[in-house]
Amino acid sequence: MKNESIGIVKTKYHSLSDDLILESGEKLKNTQIAYETYGKLNKEKSNAILVCHALSGDAHVAGWYEGDKKPGWWDIIIGPGKCLDTDKYFIICSNVIGGCKGSTGPASINHDTKKPYGLDFPIITMKDMVNAQKKLVNSMGIKQLFAVIGGSMGGMQVLQWCVSYPEMVRSAIPIATTAYSSPQQIAFNEVGRRAIISDSNWNNGAYYESKFPDSGLALARMIAHITYLSNESMYQKFGRRLQDKEDYGFNFETDFEVDFEVESYLHYQGNSFTKRFDANSYLYISKAIDYFDLAGEGSLAETFYGLKIKFLVISVDSDWLYPPSQSKDIVIGLNANDIDVRYCEIKSSYGHDAFLIEAGQLNYLIAGFLADTLVKDVMSREFAKIKEKSSIENAAETMLHEKVTHLPVISNEKRLVGIVTAWDISKSVARNYTELDEIMTKDVIVVSPEDPIELAARKMKKYSISSLPVVDENEEVIGIVTTDHISTLMTGN
Amino acid sequence: MKNESIGIVKTKYHSLSDDLILESGEKLKNTQIAYETYGKLNKEKSNAILVCHALSGDAHVAGWYEGDKKPGWWDIIIGPGKCLDTDKYFIICSNVIGGCKGSTGPASINHDTKKPYGLDFPIITMKDMVNAQKKLVNSMGIKQLFAVIGGSMGGMQVLQWCVSYPEMVRSAIPIATTAYSSPQQIAFNEVGRRAIISDSNWNNGAYYESKFPDSGLALARMIAHITYLSNESMYQKFGRRLQDKEDYGFNFETDFEVDFEVESYLHYQGNSFTKRFDANSYLYISKAIDYFDLAGEGSLAETFYGLKIKFLVISVDSDWLYPPSQSKDIVIGLNANDIDVRYCEIKSSYGHDAFLIEAGQLNYLIAGFLADTLVKDVMSREFAKIKEKSSIENAAETMLHEKVTHLPVISNEKRLVGIVTAWDISKSVARNYTELDEIMTKDVIVVSPEDPIELAARKMKKYSISSLPVVDENEEVIGIVTTDHISTLMTGN
Repeated sequence: MKNESIGIVKTKYHSLSDDLILESGEKLKNTQIAYETYGKLNKEKSNAILVCHALSGDAHVAGWYEGDKKPGWWDIIIGPGKCLDTDKYFIICSNVIGGCKGSTGPASINHDTKKPYGLDFPIITMKDMVNAQKKLVNSMGIKQLFAVIGGSMGGMQVLQWCVSYPEMVRSAIPIATTAYSSPQQIAFNEVGRRAIISDSNWNNGAYYESKFPDSGLALARMIAHITYLSNESMYQKFGRRLQDKEDYGFNFETDFEVDFEVESYLHYQGNSFTKRFDANSYLYISKAIDYFDLAGEGSLAETFYGLKIKFLVISVDSDWLYPPSQSKDIVIGLNANDIDVRYCEIKSSYGHDAFLIEAGQLNYLIAGFLADTLVKDVMSREFAKIKEKSSIENAAETMLHEKVTHLPVISNEKRLVGIVTAWDISKSVARNYTELDEIMTKDVIVVSPEDPIELAARKMKKYSISSLPVVDENEEVIGIVTTDHISTLMTGN
Repeated sequence: MKNESIGIVKTKYHSLSDDLILESGEKLKNTQIAYETYGKLNKEKSNAILVCHALSGDAHVAGWYEGDKKPGWWDIIIGPGKCLDTDKYFIICSNVIGGCKGSTGPASINHDTKKPYGLDFPIITMKDMVNAQKKLVNSMGIKQLFAVIGGSMGGMQVLQWCVSYPEMVRSAIPIATTAYSSPQQIAFNEVGRRAIISDSNWNNGAYYESKFPDSGLALARMIAHITYLSNESMYQKFGRRLQDKEDYGFNFETDFEVDFEVESYLHYQGNSFTKRFDANSYLYISKAIDYFDLAGEGSLAETFYGLKIKFLVISVDSDWLYPPSQSKDIVIGLNANDIDVRYCEIKSSYGHDAFLIEAGQLNYLIAGFLADTLVKDVMSREFAKIKEKSSIENAAETMLHEKVTHLPVISNEKRLVGIVTAWDISKSVARNYTELDEIMTKDVIVVSPEDPIELAARKMKKYSISSLPVVDENEEVIGIVTTDHISTLMTGN
């Protein structure tokens, strides 16, 4: 079951029950969110990983649609045995609002006018995208995400999650991204927007019942595509090879006649993009990227103050669009607050796109980071327990009521004095014991909250027990970890 | 007289007498070349420096047009006391063919149709541009250029000169350039062209009597402008500052409304470009850049084989459009042939544009390189001389005929045996000498061809003489160097 695909998947839809209040002050009504999930949410709902997509991405991050020739856009890291292991984790990915892949965006019907929004769609920001995602996550009853991960604009959402909802994020993996858009990034976005707006078919965004601004959108994509590749990778891929020619054309054709392979490739990329993306969405999403700035008037160190999240920050050495220096700025801001952060630079000639390509390095880095899980990260902090000197009947009733087979026995000082199991209860019936003290196990196997989860797993296996009390340095019981917790995390390995 | 401007200048025009045969095989008729010259061409015509301009440049490289607010585009390095010192050198700069600043290009009138060429203009290449320049240079009677210098596309012309007319180039200074366009460079050019072609006003290039494709040309310039700046310099210049706003606009305006200063700046650059440049010229010149490839099917080392030219190759550390690696490729190709080459990397945060800005480093590097002049570089190889045992009358006649005041006296073995001057002749008349041997100076002051020109200057000054024979290791006279040579080279210092 190593490195397999999750197979056929389907997109689901969630409608927000309330209006979404946007950062601009406007309200988005009847918001729909397209999303996909893979793997199984565990009983404690502690194994959910949210994947955030980039500018032109969508909810279809992994697996296959029936009949498709290509899997989801990040299939290389999602599936059984991959770093986002669907045997351990419950993966969620949703299309951003403002997008055009199933979530409400400028191409959606405005219920007030019964026509597509076009430019009547309100401006949305990274914070708004994350707020919509949070409502989706909450609708699943998930209180904390095991991880939030994303590259490029997806990484911006990861960072925004950490700032907007720090208590809901256990660990964060921003990749090939930045905490603020630089003037060069804004400049490239603006020329892309200008290409769209200059297309006479754009018609102030009201083109849905007429010709689409395909030429402008294709040009915007061509410009952007150059920034996703490195100089070196373009050389490796195209060199100066001519396209279906022995020699230079020495003439200007009006349509899409080109001399070089690289030109032909860009045209292909531009044209195929128009078949899968909405020009207005491009305007709105690129604007959200421009507006993104977690430092604002202050500094990243101030913004990240007080976060208790574990970070893995990844950059790509040949990425000149979101260069390593911007990832390092994130790390510096985290370090200033003594936040647990690991930084890695992927070695690749692919440029920005490496985050979608370099399967080996990504799987290695992310799996290592996620596996670095402590008992406290997955234990249940609320658990059934029973007081010392309670009756056996009382213990039996509690087990029945709480639907558990193991009950820690706690002193008045909250210390662990023993554990009583359903098997102990049945033993008491057979042997006529009446005191809890007579049947409970006093030499209890425990783990510390700081132990690696692997140690808990090994202890449970060795002693054939399905539940371990988690005891802190004061010998107080602060939680319980079960084979259920472990199995959802470990079975892939 | 240090670091001054050359003052008011005017553009001149040269019409080629013959058709220009282009690399494509087509002919360009009635070719006109706009050019400017500054400084004075010396008698030997050995002090001419040709400056080649970049994509959007023109012949107006230095000095001021009457009433203008800004000088020519490279005034920082041209003028009295600057590295291209107009007190020493004769500076020539011409607009490339295919351009729109006075030389024949797609906006020129096609004499066959009496209308602007538009797309009927033939495709031109770097080689064609250089061929046109050569005809201009030849028309001035210049046999060898003291130096050819240029940045960006100007640097490509410099390299093309070295390959096309090696015997006409004494030294070459290609700056922030490449010997071949890379796929990334082609890609950026292609998106620029696509922006123009996509403008509905472009009308297949036949827009001269109607609306111009300003929107497309402005967009092409905006895209290109991003590539001329470094990420760092954009940050220094704009940061994330908003344009005339306290907060994000949170709306899409249709025209040129923008949020950030960097957007406003790009729009300004794009719009003002449309007032000074022709869209079709942009297509043609950018295509010439794409086609440029001195390596071709072989290698740069093969291309540069046999060159006797001195090179100063300059790159800019923050230039990501024409990165130092491409300059180093030039150097490697030259080194493979043991060609005299000096390589320098300008330290600057300005990116590609640094070659137009970093006055201090450019002046220092170029002045040092040009001053490194040997006697053999400037001496006249053809000079009047007289055989040993000639008569005094014979010497007098030769002086009169050759218009010289100094005549080296040469043995049959071509060795220098003395020198006779006009003053010696007049002395012979006064004292009734009849033999050359009696009046000539036998203890002749000479220089070696490998001596620095400064040494020749010092000797002439010390002995108050205006001409020195140049004698090689076999004591043969191989040339003559005069104060005229020196003065045009040295007086600026």
